[in-house]
Amino acid sequence: MSYKLLEGKKGIIFGALDSKSIAWKTAESVYENGGQVVLTNAPIAMRMGAINELGEKINAPIIPADATSIDDLNELISKSEAHFGDKIDFVLHSIGMSVNVRKGKHYTDLNYDWLQKGWDVSAVSFHKLMQTLYKNDSMKEGGSIVALSYIAAQRTFPNYNDMADNKAYLESIARSFGYFFGKNKKVRVNTISQSPTPTTAGQGVKGLDAFLEYAEKTSPLGNATAKDCADYIVALFSDLTRKITLQNLYNDGGFSNVGISEEVMEYFNNL
Amino acid sequence: MSYKLLEGKKGIIFGALDSKSIAWKTAESVYENGGQVVLTNAPIAMRMGAINELGEKINAPIIPADATSIDDLNELISKSEAHFGDKIDFVLHSIGMSVNVRKGKHYTDLNYDWLQKGWDVSAVSFHKLMQTLYKNDSMKEGGSIVALSYIAAQRTFPNYNDMADNKAYLESIARSFGYFFGKNKKVRVNTISQSPTPTTAGQGVKGLDAFLEYAEKTSPLGNATAKDCADYIVALFSDLTRKITLQNLYNDGGFSNVGISEEVMEYFNNL
Amino acid sequence: MSYKLLEGKKGIIFGALDSKSIAWKTAESVYENGGQVVLTNAPIAMRMGAINELGEKINAPIIPADATSIDDLNELISKSEAHFGDKIDFVLHSIGMSVNVRKGKHYTDLNYDWLQKGWDVSAVSFHKLMQTLYKNDSMKEGGSIVALSYIAAQRTFPNYNDMADNKAYLESIARSFGYFFGKNKKVRVNTISQSPTPTTAGQGVKGLDAFLEYAEKTSPLGNATAKDCADYIVALFSDLTRKITLQNLYNDGGFSNVGISEEVMEYFNNL
Amino acid sequence: MSYKLLEGKKGIIFGALDSKSIAWKTAESVYENGGQVVLTNAPIAMRMGAINELGEKINAPIIPADATSIDDLNELISKSEAHFGDKIDFVLHSIGMSVNVRKGKHYTDLNYDWLQKGWDVSAVSFHKLMQTLYKNDSMKEGGSIVALSYIAAQRTFPNYNDMADNKAYLESIARSFGYFFGKNKKVRVNTISQSPTPTTAGQGVKGLDAFLEYAEKTSPLGNATAKDCADYIVALFSDLTRKITLQNLYNDGGFSNVGISEEVMEYFNNL
Repeated sequence: MSYKLLEGKKGIIFGALDSKSIAWKTAESVYENGGQVVLTNAPIAMRMGAINELGEKINAPIIPADATSIDDLNELISKSEAHFGDKIDFVLHSIGMSVNVRKGKHYTDLNYDWLQKGWDVSAVSFHKLMQTLYKNDSMKEGGSIVALSYIAAQRTFPNYNDMADNKAYLESIARSFGYFFGKNKKVRVNTISQSPTPTTAGQGVKGLDAFLEYAEKTSPLGNATAKDCADYIVALFSDLTRKITLQNLYNDGGFSNVGISEEVMEYFNNL
Repeated sequence: MSYKLLEGKKGIIFGALDSKSIAWKTAESVYENGGQVVLTNAPIAMRMGAINELGEKINAPIIPADATSIDDLNELISKSEAHFGDKIDFVLHSIGMSVNVRKGKHYTDLNYDWLQKGWDVSAVSFHKLMQTLYKNDSMKEGGSIVALSYIAAQRTFPNYNDMADNKAYLESIARSFGYFFGKNKKVRVNTISQSPTPTTAGQGVKGLDAFLEYAEKTSPLGNATAKDCADYIVALFSDLTRKITLQNLYNDGGFSNVGISEEVMEYFNNL
Repeated sequence: MSYKLLEGKKGIIFGALDSKSIAWKTAESVYENGGQVVLTNAPIAMRMGAINELGEKINAPIIPADATSIDDLNELISKSEAHFGDKIDFVLHSIGMSVNVRKGKHYTDLNYDWLQKGWDVSAVSFHKLMQTLYKNDSMKEGGSIVALSYIAAQRTFPNYNDMADNKAYLESIARSFGYFFGKNKKVRVNTISQSPTPTTAGQGVKGLDAFLEYAEKTSPLGNATAKDCADYIVALFSDLTRKITLQNLYNDGGFSNVGISEEVMEYFNNL
Repeated sequence: MSYKLLEGKKGIIFGALDSKSIAWKTAESVYENGGQVVLTNAPIAMRMGAINELGEKINAPIIPADATSIDDLNELISKSEAHFGDKIDFVLHSIGMSVNVRKGKHYTDLNYDWLQKGWDVSAVSFHKLMQTLYKNDSMKEGGSIVALSYIAAQRTFPNYNDMADNKAYLESIARSFGYFFGKNKKVRVNTISQSPTPTTAGQGVKGLDAFLEYAEKTSPLGNATAKDCADYIVALFSDLTRKITLQNLYNDGGFSNVGISEEVMEYFNNL
């Protein structure tokens, strides 16, 4: 869908790994709606190369940055402002990683060095990003910052492991920093709590297929896809949502507010 | 803002009382975005006349209907479908009234006949509307239904009286009916929890000015206006938000997630 | 468990239907903890007779009252105060009934007369009860009022039908009235959101067995029983919880904060 | 209040700094209710000495432990089990500290080494504590673990700084670990979200007096005191609350569910 909703707007998108990524779809949707994008990713993720293809397609420079490094963030932001010849209207934070999940450590047997690493990458990076934007006064009035979250921040999904706690921290940062960004810079900060999405990054989570099926059956409209999420992000970057801030917004086909669906009850009826 | 986001979409808007109304602003924004509208209001509110002016401006027929009457709703819907030559894409329910508030009855001294009247008008009407749409199979797949709510459904605002309980019931209807509308008709149902808004209808609430000031000082982006709300509703009617359902969405400048603002703390510091 | 936690405290318990009832178990637990009780029920429910047995066992008078009738409530309260020779320390509201559920009407095909009847019995009765207590100044300072609710007030359980909306309204009343009861009378008002419980009253809900099984498998500690609820109510009536008010408190083995359990995921893994 | 509610129960209490502490009051209340206690604190806090006085009064050994050190936690737990000659029934985690708050760093200008230190002490320590208890199988079936939190985990209180994010992480840990502790060990895990309390530890928060006044005026029952909190903790350690888990429980005089109080509105009316 292309409505030129973001005509004249410029922003940075983190986390476009490959064409399944929410960030990738978002970059495409932003471009189709007239927005200009700088793409960024951790240098280690960049090696995968696919991002160059996206960059060419949507005419976006790619600036590698480790989102846990203040130096990298400063450079990313100043280069982006130079590229745009302007301040920044929107930012998407789509970054998450748990070493404990990757290494198969159970939540009751966590490695605390890995815990800290995942917390820094998945959650603190969002604070670092906003603090850098804030200190450099790089966001335009009326701007919009979005980070991706997951309902495990509110309810326990056993396999989601320490990412649940990281997402709770991330959502809290959105509220805490959103207060100051709103009061002092007129900038919105929100998180989207997205359906489980079969991205490449999500494949580390154990039992994902069963869970996708459960979520699909529970959600009245089925799971929201990466493209659905990209569309919502476009709306949140646009001027249609100028007073929405400090919110965690579910894009999940209704999953979050269903106790049990008829389909799931049916399984239990048939046991 | 006009992005033709609703090109080809047709819907019904309840509650456009005068140019301060959220429903009025919504009708204008829908029209600017290419959508077609049927306006409706209770016959008693219609006498005020202003709505004719709006109807002419946006080329919308006006069909009076008492939203508590199944007969009126059936007629409204069939006439609307006849007018559009098509099913309905979107509906806005912006209806609320408490006799106890109007008559100045305190929440600890309610008149129960008045309580029932307000409940029927403010909350049950939303169920009646959806049940009529559902039974007549009048909503198009991918359609979107929105009702207006207020944070008093979650937290106590002493002057809001029995409207708080009505809004809690309304939001519950959105979840309950949204489940079936999603599963069986692929239609979204959400409520927007809007900042206190100085509409004509809102003037019955005691101490509104002081409260508007408090909310303005508490919200990092200030209170959302009727126009801000209209913009958000356009986004929720559009295809950008196709998987958002069963949600209560705060359009409030961040009010809902602020415990206390620095400005409010300042007042208490100076006591 | 008997700790004399309620020594010297006197109160009214609504809804003891038979020995499976939460209200019945609560009356027993209150008695064991040194509290004095007046039992009450709707005249129509009284005919079942079992309540007399309970009354004798715990030395409690039985005063029939239709909780939707202000006259009955006035009489119940004045007789209770006369019996106790004192004001009232605690009240349990355990009343709920949906005609639409009983008659098998689907939520998308409700009968609105029945809707109103169920709303009056299940939710408005709680306001009527509190308004009568408040106007008569019948609650003692430090007193505690509890009503029973269910998580369908927050999330959709399709078979729960219009009881979901009634419970949402009930919980809102607890907050709204709790504000005034707290400020002006130093009385607490809370709701308990209890696990699905196989009481006689609950048997009207379709597919209850499958649902009980699902809830049992989802809750880390399993479903809370009627006795577990009675114990919690004793704690809420006691002086150990004097500053807890306006809350909806889950007594559900953790159900409310679990997204999916390993057992439920296992079912989906095996499909 | 002494009801022997904890007769035969044994547990560990972290964070009794001085007689104003919630942990201190809890230790006293537990003792009065027949429970046996081991007191612990960080070695650096122990130097303050006051804790010895408490230890003598309630006949509790004092075992210093840095709650961020797995070695210290292992030693604390094994020594406690040796002292009790039994497994552990209850644990109170009352630990919180932000270097950024202490050093006066604004939330938009955080030092990230200090952020990590505060996160480790205030939040990760709760995971480390539970992981150590879990691995050693040191909790008795039916046991209860409580940590203290604050509503800044849900809503922004600008002066609360990075402690807000720490508390959000802490509450998420309670849910995440509570799932496994419930399923596999039949142990409850909850957090209490307490009114602002004028403890010695709380004095670092800027503008505390104004805030205490605001909270007092907003809460229908006024702020909950340290003693009120101790009473609630006793109830949560007792067998009266065996099926309550994964919850964040507000002990706040109703603050959390009030939008605005009449007193606060009055201030704005008079501006």
